[in-house]
Amino acid sequence: MTKHSDTKVAVLGLGAMGSALASAVVKAGYVTTVWNRSPRKADALGAEGAVVAATARDAVTASDVVVACLFDAASVREVLDPIADSLAGRTLVNVTTTSPEAAREFASWAAERGVVYLDGGIMAVPEMIGSPGSSVLYSGSEGAFERHRPLLDLWGESVYCGEDAGMASLYDLALLSGMYVMFAGFMHGAAMVAGAGVSAREFAGRSAAWLRAMTEGFAGFAEVIDGGDYTVPGQQSLEFSSLDDLLTASAAQGISTELLDAVQKLIQPQIDAGHGKEGFARVFESIKHPA
Amino acid sequence: MTKHSDTKVAVLGLGAMGSALASAVVKAGYVTTVWNRSPRKADALGAEGAVVAATARDAVTASDVVVACLFDAASVREVLDPIADSLAGRTLVNVTTTSPEAAREFASWAAERGVVYLDGGIMAVPEMIGSPGSSVLYSGSEGAFERHRPLLDLWGESVYCGEDAGMASLYDLALLSGMYVMFAGFMHGAAMVAGAGVSAREFAGRSAAWLRAMTEGFAGFAEVIDGGDYTVPGQQSLEFSSLDDLLTASAAQGISTELLDAVQKLIQPQIDAGHGKEGFARVFESIKHPA
Repeated sequence: MTKHSDTKVAVLGLGAMGSALASAVVKAGYVTTVWNRSPRKADALGAEGAVVAATARDAVTASDVVVACLFDAASVREVLDPIADSLAGRTLVNVTTTSPEAAREFASWAAERGVVYLDGGIMAVPEMIGSPGSSVLYSGSEGAFERHRPLLDLWGESVYCGEDAGMASLYDLALLSGMYVMFAGFMHGAAMVAGAGVSAREFAGRSAAWLRAMTEGFAGFAEVIDGGDYTVPGQQSLEFSSLDDLLTASAAQGISTELLDAVQKLIQPQIDAGHGKEGFARVFESIKHPA
Repeated sequence: MTKHSDTKVAVLGLGAMGSALASAVVKAGYVTTVWNRSPRKADALGAEGAVVAATARDAVTASDVVVACLFDAASVREVLDPIADSLAGRTLVNVTTTSPEAAREFASWAAERGVVYLDGGIMAVPEMIGSPGSSVLYSGSEGAFERHRPLLDLWGESVYCGEDAGMASLYDLALLSGMYVMFAGFMHGAAMVAGAGVSAREFAGRSAAWLRAMTEGFAGFAEVIDGGDYTVPGQQSLEFSSLDDLLTASAAQGISTELLDAVQKLIQPQIDAGHGKEGFARVFESIKHPA
């Protein structure tokens, strides 16, 4: 365990998320050096007590742990490639959202340059950083994860997913997939009732409450999926889950049916294959084993 | 207001939902007559104290309020058309999931036959009936809704959506759309991590917590949608919401990308039209005004 006063931290990238991460570190009393391509974004953190570096290299050389929170994998390469020599011997915690493949490439890149690498996937919006609902998934160097737990825990629950550096990213992307799909589903519903004069605000309240309640169904689906027997009694059948009424009503409102069509295309082939009386969880099979 | 002892209730259709509704009514002390096409399903309710009718007509003639909870609109017609004369003068509460159009047709059908019609959309799974998380949307006869509130409130929060009989159904289908889309999104995520050895059970716990937290974003989207100005600062931009990493990672796992493709097809045209820096809520426009 490292006392926080012993660890110097750099944060590269001060978008909303990078700023939230850096702010939590500054508040916890770490010596924190921040850098952002457009320097104006560093002002607020400077006022909070962070050291504002003129270059990414200055931030890195001032620190033991370097947190990269940039726009995408390409920007990470662009910022770090020219200063790889400065990173050698330090720990890089890369929380930029990237593909699992890119995370593995960063791990190799880091290993070749003597950089200890930990990849992170942040399961929170910036406002949630440091609050009980926030969690961050990590994969890569287990040693770095253990050594820097006090730092990592400032941002939320820290979850270690394994030595494969791509694992946190894969998990992150899987959770994000669910989120974007849910957001689109909410907007589909809002568009359905908008034509009947219901405000998005009114619908949002009911939809959020309804979907929160319905997440309780995931555990039941998961039990069936892990068990591999979709005929277990007590499930809502695929037959009963036809989206025909939803599609008809959407079309009658003149709105796009593309999203529901995509879900129906995961349901219908299972019914056509004779599984109509089995549970809705069989949709998993349509996704896992596409035709 | 009617004292419950004065109102006799029939429940037609004793699937999981109809049985839950009937059970709540029996327990509240109403004289309750139940009927189901296959009579065996009435046994449990008979044991609880319901009168088991041999025919739908017998159930109707014994009651003031007739609750229909059948498989679909066609089954409602099939059961009620032959006994329409018995329904005259009574109140029909149809909670069968149907299209808004079918609900309006039932309302006309009922009006022509002197039947008071209330359409209902149940926002709960059977296990939730009567618990705080359950709500039921109603539209059609406001008089019937007010008169029978004590009965309706047994099942959950009762929400009146207006005289247009199709409104409850439209709202119901809009909420159900969000649910089915969310379920599919969960299964997509579960399929993404399954290949890396993560059980659906483990993923379900994290995914449920994450998506519950993310429903907090609906209110912000709604404010932007209702305001109609997608350039309001502080939103996550469409550009930043590209699903490319999610699609690439899904394809790398060999799973179906159909669901994410559908969401991407709601995002990309907005970016292509020059709105990339505007908020993600613009996806609403892709749905509301399809090309």
